[in-house]
Amino acid sequence: MTYRLWYWPGIQGRGEFVRLALEAGGIAYEDCAREQGAEALIADLDGRAGGRGAFAPPYLETPDGIVSHVANILAYLGQAHGIAPLALADRQWLNGIQLTIADLVAEVHNVHHPVAMMDYYEDQKPEAARAAAQFRGGRMPKFLGYFEAALGANPGDWLMGETWSHGDTSLFQIVAGLRYMLPQRMAAIEGDYPKLIALHDRVAGLDGIKAYLASKRRIAFNTQGIFRHYPELDAA
Amino acid sequence: MTYRLWYWPGIQGRGEFVRLALEAGGIAYEDCAREQGAEALIADLDGRAGGRGAFAPPYLETPDGIVSHVANILAYLGQAHGIAPLALADRQWLNGIQLTIADLVAEVHNVHHPVAMMDYYEDQKPEAARAAAQFRGGRMPKFLGYFEAALGANPGDWLMGETWSHGDTSLFQIVAGLRYMLPQRMAAIEGDYPKLIALHDRVAGLDGIKAYLASKRRIAFNTQGIFRHYPELDAA
Repeated sequence: MTYRLWYWPGIQGRGEFVRLALEAGGIAYEDCAREQGAEALIADLDGRAGGRGAFAPPYLETPDGIVSHVANILAYLGQAHGIAPLALADRQWLNGIQLTIADLVAEVHNVHHPVAMMDYYEDQKPEAARAAAQFRGGRMPKFLGYFEAALGANPGDWLMGETWSHGDTSLFQIVAGLRYMLPQRMAAIEGDYPKLIALHDRVAGLDGIKAYLASKRRIAFNTQGIFRHYPELDAA
Repeated sequence: MTYRLWYWPGIQGRGEFVRLALEAGGIAYEDCAREQGAEALIADLDGRAGGRGAFAPPYLETPDGIVSHVANILAYLGQAHGIAPLALADRQWLNGIQLTIADLVAEVHNVHHPVAMMDYYEDQKPEAARAAAQFRGGRMPKFLGYFEAALGANPGDWLMGETWSHGDTSLFQIVAGLRYMLPQRMAAIEGDYPKLIALHDRVAGLDGIKAYLASKRRIAFNTQGIFRHYPELDAA
């Protein structure tokens, strides 16, 4: 069976958290809009309206219907493919981590789109500068500190148990994304999060991830995605 | 068994989505910080750091560990107490709805705190005015239209199946919250969402919700919560 993933074709964005888990797990998928274009994605999304459609991408076509939202998709894949623990308490904890990551991703997007989500960054640069200052100084270390502590709750090499889960691939992407977005700030503080950085490197060394990062399937970070590098928003 | 819910004591906020489901289901819970104060909440949250703690309230103490985030808590309660369908495809769809509601709630918060989440509204009023305009004109009808269409996917009176689920109590809160926050705008457009408004009224008539709304346990909407009424941010 090959899953059909629907997400914007030109960016990593929220879809990347799903792609990374699929790639790390060697799970077959078609990245539909990368093959058919953004128009096909919009047509598919609109075509499902009024039924059990999604509000927005990413969503995954599965034998059990459309699954929307990163954490929901990863919870599905975790159970279906064993890329997450199966005990209820473990699944709930992991889902809480994924939802905290989703909250961080929303705040990251808000840095460059604080007042007008549907307008361009260039139309809200002073507001973005103010949002970025608070993000760098307060929210970013708060989130990273939480993830560092979460990693400390497990004696092993991974977020949970003795093998990787989709929680690890998502934390990898947080580190990679923030390094691209705010390189000065990350360089200044990442020494405070040794477990998180070591985890990033460990995920980068997984066979499936190594192959993915070296392939054309990995879209480069760019200023259309969620993590965006605008030098004027960065500072140590 | 009595659940222990941890959330800020003076506001409805995100915790209200959990309270409503518990009240509608007649499920026993202690609203810990309402009895012990916000300091107790902060102490409890901090005391769990380094273990499997939460990033932020709300979280629920269950026999299966701490569960954080509204959608995660409601998914747990849904299965444990039959206040949601049990089939996998149904649970995934409902979880997608709850996560869409969470996205809307985050955007609602962003209206009054667009550039500085940790500062006061009064420190970001011009930016909030701009954020509110786009929310009223674009995002708010887009979300409400999505929920209206979702209700149309079920021939019955509820979001899913033939009885209420936590999806219905959450949609009730969206209508109630937006009516408080943006009364002029809601009055102007709510006629476009007849199924959603009828659902709101149906939930308000559930025995558990009727009793809750008439009790002191229902905190009044106020300008410390997520849905805030600032007249200068409203317009038809």
